[in-house]
Amino acid sequence: MTGDKLKRTLVTETTEQIGKKVLLKGWINSIRDHGKITFIDLRDRSGIVQCVGEKLLKVSPESVVEIIGKVTERPKELVNSKLETGTVEVEVKEIKVLAKAQELPLDMGSKDLELTLPTLLDNRSLTLRHPKTKAIFKIQEIIMQAFRDALKKKDFTEFEAPTIVPVATEGGAEIFPVSYYDYNAYLGQSPQLYKQIMVSIFERVYTVGRAYRAEPSVTTRHLSEYISLDCEFGFIDSWTELMDMAEYTIREMLSAVEKDCKEELALHKATIPELSNKIPRLKMREAQQIIFERTGRDNRKEPDLEPEDEREICRWSQEKHDSEFVFITHFPTSKRPFYTYPDPKDPKNTLSFDLLGRGLELITGGQRINDYDQLLANIKKWKLNPDDFSIYLQAFKYGMPPEGGFALGAERITMQILGLKNIREASLFPRDMERVDVRLSTLKRSKKKSKK
Amino acid sequence: MTGDKLKRTLVTETTEQIGKKVLLKGWINSIRDHGKITFIDLRDRSGIVQCVGEKLLKVSPESVVEIIGKVTERPKELVNSKLETGTVEVEVKEIKVLAKAQELPLDMGSKDLELTLPTLLDNRSLTLRHPKTKAIFKIQEIIMQAFRDALKKKDFTEFEAPTIVPVATEGGAEIFPVSYYDYNAYLGQSPQLYKQIMVSIFERVYTVGRAYRAEPSVTTRHLSEYISLDCEFGFIDSWTELMDMAEYTIREMLSAVEKDCKEELALHKATIPELSNKIPRLKMREAQQIIFERTGRDNRKEPDLEPEDEREICRWSQEKHDSEFVFITHFPTSKRPFYTYPDPKDPKNTLSFDLLGRGLELITGGQRINDYDQLLANIKKWKLNPDDFSIYLQAFKYGMPPEGGFALGAERITMQILGLKNIREASLFPRDMERVDVRLSTLKRSKKKSKK
Repeated sequence: MTGDKLKRTLVTETTEQIGKKVLLKGWINSIRDHGKITFIDLRDRSGIVQCVGEKLLKVSPESVVEIIGKVTERPKELVNSKLETGTVEVEVKEIKVLAKAQELPLDMGSKDLELTLPTLLDNRSLTLRHPKTKAIFKIQEIIMQAFRDALKKKDFTEFEAPTIVPVATEGGAEIFPVSYYDYNAYLGQSPQLYKQIMVSIFERVYTVGRAYRAEPSVTTRHLSEYISLDCEFGFIDSWTELMDMAEYTIREMLSAVEKDCKEELALHKATIPELSNKIPRLKMREAQQIIFERTGRDNRKEPDLEPEDEREICRWSQEKHDSEFVFITHFPTSKRPFYTYPDPKDPKNTLSFDLLGRGLELITGGQRINDYDQLLANIKKWKLNPDDFSIYLQAFKYGMPPEGGFALGAERITMQILGLKNIREASLFPRDMERVDVRLSTLKRSKKKSKK
Repeated sequence: MTGDKLKRTLVTETTEQIGKKVLLKGWINSIRDHGKITFIDLRDRSGIVQCVGEKLLKVSPESVVEIIGKVTERPKELVNSKLETGTVEVEVKEIKVLAKAQELPLDMGSKDLELTLPTLLDNRSLTLRHPKTKAIFKIQEIIMQAFRDALKKKDFTEFEAPTIVPVATEGGAEIFPVSYYDYNAYLGQSPQLYKQIMVSIFERVYTVGRAYRAEPSVTTRHLSEYISLDCEFGFIDSWTELMDMAEYTIREMLSAVEKDCKEELALHKATIPELSNKIPRLKMREAQQIIFERTGRDNRKEPDLEPEDEREICRWSQEKHDSEFVFITHFPTSKRPFYTYPDPKDPKNTLSFDLLGRGLELITGGQRINDYDQLLANIKKWKLNPDDFSIYLQAFKYGMPPEGGFALGAERITMQILGLKNIREASLFPRDMERVDVRLSTLKRSKKKSKK
């Protein structure tokens, strides 16, 4: 076709090509047949443009086409202000189908794509194309990029952590076994031990990787496989530096989304969370006291915050401090992993923190035990086998500075920024108790009996 | 201590602090007791500086210390040109041990750390601290960063691929089973299917992730878990655009390492591979003919290149084209996965390529089948079950443009740049048939019988 010599124009570039002949390539976002005239909304990676032609061949929505046409300016009364390319349209001269789409199982033309979760996920490769769904993952990309950029500015080094591990890092049963040659290994619940080791190599490190939790129940906040953004650094003078770094990082991430994802936020009618000049910091016991005073719910002796407590303390934070985020600190030693640093003034509690945002735990962090003997004693106390941790323990045996860090799940922060109802919407291909792309019921059953 | 009010100075910053009192923090890289005077080489994330003092307390190497001292200029005859901080030394006023190191099991003070591989890996958390080992992973960080930066410049979107998958992507037995709740799932051999799906969402995508191969043998070139750098894009006019993009990307990666890692390359006496203006491109059959003519070894009917063939054709490329890299194209259909695009002019061969560098396959890529019916037919022909690929097939059922991509392992390119003898040296915590941090023999045996 004659278009072979034309260079491709992206659809958002058409506004600068008025009067010119262009070659466009993309998907039929929608097609409207008005008798003599046909309107096509063509979608490519840059956006959508309206194309118009007479007696156009019938093309099914989502088909991939090449269009050669002339860009014309729209009369003022026909300008579509909702479309980036709304000042122009393209008069179609030739159209060629590169890949025909079959009839769609659902209406992709609706503005909001309001589907049930099973329908959304059963048709994942199709529903991801919808601009509103796609926007979620553009935002997620920016979140991950901003995490990297923020820490790079602070002289951190990026590394990749292994995911096949010899032992359950955090203890507990929520771990996936892997048949590793003739042995049993596991999928890492977090890159925790590796990022701590890496502090003894590069001092300041971060990693973006996959973490795995065999969550035994279906909730709206948990995934079996998620993206963990992990940060760890040494030579801290005080554990509060860890919260400072977490606060800095989350601010950088939110600013980047606000700056780079205006259109995506608008599609979801979402706004960036409000943060005060300094995010409030409360001890867990203080938070429970406030909740008791506000609601009469007395959880003051509980060892952790319940989901409803998390929502309530965020409401308090917003009302009293204009901050949708709040740090909760000093969780009990009994509820934290073996490596958590006990508060020297009150060893029943730890120098640890959660950052809650819009009612949900987003970041977990804290200082770690860096003394070899103390760490070894704790591993034994937690009834773990030191031999399984030999590479980890080495890092402490030969000199580890005071250190700590934090971690957050990319899907959770995405969900909270956009106000999504279920974390599965913030995962490209969510894995849970019921699904790993296909529904589990279609897979072969394990020969092992369920351990329940 | 009085140092509490001093702000930490990084050791490489001492050259700008002559005459001033500084607070340094780091590891004892080495300590030399000359009777009355003691020399300490202090290492932090920025480098090494020499500290000197009288009657210093005994500190074991690798211990973590804080030093308060005064920076002095060295007399000209004592300047150490091999050290970035060689123009100064620090007169120690106070020294405080933050974490004492136990006696080292090996000599970390030697310049080249020449250890056997088992010793290197049994002591991984320690040996990673050696500047020469550490340099490997600084280079690997730059490689990954340059991969991202190169593709971002070309309007690519980054995504994260899941690693728990319902089915063996590339077929074959080299796959790790995961006990996924009560079902069998697997660890992905590559993000291949997901990056293809993502082309139908964002057109141009890349991902940096973990890939898994249950390699049934121990070689110097294979890992059980490795870092896969994956790129895929749509709307290609010709499959040669894929090689162009691969060539562009690898050049950007090599340039970044050359620019940002001078010191690290020098530690390994390594040089960036020589590339000609355009990397030579040879069909596999042409390569075999050249090898036959050069060596008399007749592999002209073999369906693939053997390792010795890869080395020989790289020698040819360097001799004839001044290029240590060479593309080999048109591998037989029978040797490539089900999604590979057959050459329309010669369907027994595919529009696929490998990029060899310094005698080793570094990149694999090619055009993919984008027609739904053809892809479905191939899945059946390869004796795979289409139901297992439902999410993947959806992307093609509803319109996929002509597309392709490529992938490379971060460890392999690191290994080839530095001339490492074993790929395990280029993996922070290598996993193989014998080891996953600890030696496998120390782990619990799987109840399943070996399938061999």
